[in-house]
Amino acid sequence: MHPLAKFIRSIPNFPKQGILFRDITTLLQDPAAFRQACDILVDRYKNAGIQKVAGVESRGFIFGAVIALRLNAGFVPIRKRGKLPAKVIRQEYQLEYGTDSIEMHEDAILPGEGVLVHDDLLATGGTMSAACKLVERLGGRILGISFLIELTFLHGRKKLGRNDVFSIIQYPSEELEG
Amino acid sequence: MHPLAKFIRSIPNFPKQGILFRDITTLLQDPAAFRQACDILVDRYKNAGIQKVAGVESRGFIFGAVIALRLNAGFVPIRKRGKLPAKVIRQEYQLEYGTDSIEMHEDAILPGEGVLVHDDLLATGGTMSAACKLVERLGGRILGISFLIELTFLHGRKKLGRNDVFSIIQYPSEELEG
Repeated sequence: MHPLAKFIRSIPNFPKQGILFRDITTLLQDPAAFRQACDILVDRYKNAGIQKVAGVESRGFIFGAVIALRLNAGFVPIRKRGKLPAKVIRQEYQLEYGTDSIEMHEDAILPGEGVLVHDDLLATGGTMSAACKLVERLGGRILGISFLIELTFLHGRKKLGRNDVFSIIQYPSEELEG
Repeated sequence: MHPLAKFIRSIPNFPKQGILFRDITTLLQDPAAFRQACDILVDRYKNAGIQKVAGVESRGFIFGAVIALRLNAGFVPIRKRGKLPAKVIRQEYQLEYGTDSIEMHEDAILPGEGVLVHDDLLATGGTMSAACKLVERLGGRILGISFLIELTFLHGRKKLGRNDVFSIIQYPSEELEG
């Protein structure tokens, strides 16, 4: 387990019974831990040719914006349906019951641009898989997919194809000591 | 008008008829413009003694996280009701019809800490006024309130008391040429 894991707070039964929520706010409010997490992500991609960093609403905006600035790339928000004001493309994805969808402005990424797609946490991979489809539909080249946290027991990577997937902290089980 | 205004896209009738939406995504996706906006905010507060930057969900996370990192401060998310997993304090505010509320973790700010509160846009000031109340209830000292954009014709500053309020771009009217 990465040493930064000690800054993550684990909260039982949120947002519902039986779920152990991994809370990054305790890491964010510690300047040294926040900086270290940013440095790890920036160092990994600094020579990768990233031109746009796409962050998934809303916690993905936090590290996504920082990485974009430090890589001298543009930042692109991927948002829940109905939040982006200009012309969008939309991608649906499966939830446990039913579907949800996310959107990206259709002028957010130019064909051929190198893109890093970022979210704070990889669970089943449904949202990130949809985010990647949005990037690809606009002609973006996905050069990396990054997370702060990965719940490896949910096997979300399987949904992300042959892309380069990176996470700082991995939890192998949904247990408090994990 | 600040030169960065040319990177803001104005979209009529979003999110509803009669509203001219000021869209920051066109600024964010331009690396030089994004950097310049960040630099302006960081330069303004770099010697202000900021220990925490509180950003209002969700666009306030973008610049809020960047400013926090560059000021070597912690980042604190202020979120819509029900999104934060640990123990929170909640503040209601008035909407045109009815009320809404925002929350902050009760351990996010320590008594006496110097706080910058950030959101992307100042309209009527209702959300930011509630955000400031959350900070003050935890004993934080508000050393600044910052925005990328201010709709000055809505007089939102009046709701923010005697705090130091700063915005980069001001729109004096809801007109396309504004």
